[in-house]
Amino acid sequence: MTPAENAQLALLLEVAGTPKPGNVDRERDFSDLRFEHFLAGAVGAGPGLRTAEDGAPVGEAFEKAVAGMSQQEGGNTQFGALLLLVPLVKAAAKLDEGEGLSPESVSRVVEDTTVEDAADFFRAFDHADVYVDDPPEDAADLDVRRGSDAVPAVEDREVTLYDVLALGDEEDDVAAEWTGGFERTFWAADRLAELSGPTSAKAARVYLELLAREPDTLVAKQHGPKTAESVRVRAQQALEGGPEVIEAFAESLVTDGVNPGTTADLTAAGLFVALTRGEVTV
Amino acid sequence: MTPAENAQLALLLEVAGTPKPGNVDRERDFSDLRFEHFLAGAVGAGPGLRTAEDGAPVGEAFEKAVAGMSQQEGGNTQFGALLLLVPLVKAAAKLDEGEGLSPESVSRVVEDTTVEDAADFFRAFDHADVYVDDPPEDAADLDVRRGSDAVPAVEDREVTLYDVLALGDEEDDVAAEWTGGFERTFWAADRLAELSGPTSAKAARVYLELLAREPDTLVAKQHGPKTAESVRVRAQQALEGGPEVIEAFAESLVTDGVNPGTTADLTAAGLFVALTRGEVTV
Repeated sequence: MTPAENAQLALLLEVAGTPKPGNVDRERDFSDLRFEHFLAGAVGAGPGLRTAEDGAPVGEAFEKAVAGMSQQEGGNTQFGALLLLVPLVKAAAKLDEGEGLSPESVSRVVEDTTVEDAADFFRAFDHADVYVDDPPEDAADLDVRRGSDAVPAVEDREVTLYDVLALGDEEDDVAAEWTGGFERTFWAADRLAELSGPTSAKAARVYLELLAREPDTLVAKQHGPKTAESVRVRAQQALEGGPEVIEAFAESLVTDGVNPGTTADLTAAGLFVALTRGEVTV
Repeated sequence: MTPAENAQLALLLEVAGTPKPGNVDRERDFSDLRFEHFLAGAVGAGPGLRTAEDGAPVGEAFEKAVAGMSQQEGGNTQFGALLLLVPLVKAAAKLDEGEGLSPESVSRVVEDTTVEDAADFFRAFDHADVYVDDPPEDAADLDVRRGSDAVPAVEDREVTLYDVLALGDEEDDVAAEWTGGFERTFWAADRLAELSGPTSAKAARVYLELLAREPDTLVAKQHGPKTAESVRVRAQQALEGGPEVIEAFAESLVTDGVNPGTTADLTAAGLFVALTRGEVTV
């Protein structure tokens, strides 16, 4: 499969993995966000992912992928996952013969992003309703919620997309991947390679392991750091407790409206790396 | 979405619909054929479907779609569905402004197929292990199980792809769609438009309704016409009996290794028509 196809398959395998406590999966729909919205999001993201594979700038490919993803009625399904996948696809497409996908190769892609990439990133927010926190005080004009209205400020300040994400990498673990060598993405890929069984089942396991290791930053933004830490601890207990504890954990997250979406994004990115390296097959 | 994207989404929504007695769905894996194989099949079919959208001949696009679909370890996942979807995609891409997808528009596409399309159809069998019956006695040299080895016979006899499928339209309901104006495909689309609820749930319902109306031809080929008729009657009882009867029916088909695959193909084709017409949305 091509890099863009592996990215679409990673999005699909991620949402197919079950149980994935707190997130939509193949056995759990929310009332307004359903499994089928994720299927449509993965299909719609295709042209943007292929643009990245063909060498387009990260910002342009990302905006196109998000616009395509948004052609369904569930709202934001895979924004964060695409922000990881687009540079990964671009890195995978640029590999020399025999070169493996590595933290270095994707770091080069994100470090090379430009002011125009940043502008397109802000434009992508016009297509999807993404949950975000207030920006840092000294960067109020770079509030992503302003979408394309913030583009003049991006250009005035001459910030690249890498710079923009570096502004938020302490509060957002997708941004932290960009500035930290995609560390958790590659960790997830390594774990997927170690486990056995159907790929979507391994993805559900790795999701829970990621969740048990670090508090989910989307949960922290929406419910506060204490809740995020409590979810982390309970994920650890669920891993130790087995299927019934995992199921009860899943039920309680749904009841409380707690959605560890960033951890799902990392899982999709890890799946992409493992598929690209041939460490998991379907 | 483009016609090719609607076709990929139709493949995904079809397999996501549950319960779909006798077939893999989002809640039921077989030991060697799993939900994730269908996800990979739908992703891999993309280039072939886009080729059809771009106006390539049916045979060429179909062979490419099947080759792409086969990049997974589950075997034949969506061969029959693609044989319906490729001409439907081509018809949808050729529609004039304001013209709706109709039995006439897709019939024109299949009636216009050529000897070269037939040759590519036989070549497609090289990529996937498809269950088929013996050919008619007077067409032993056109046995699709010979794959590309049958191409010289195709060219000698100057049979078009439409002719080849007409040879089998009494035993195979995908072939019968080609020669019969895609009657059951459009019936399924109309039913999808009438029902309410999530699209994949409607797909599961329409699958069962199709199964209750006519014996599945794959079941007839694999287990004989009596079994196929008995499955039809039990599908009707399941529709009348509600969720528990449907579940028991599903269990028994799995136990008996009975897989109404042709009915699933028709469901995917119906989903495509309904998506294209905007009669269902996701």
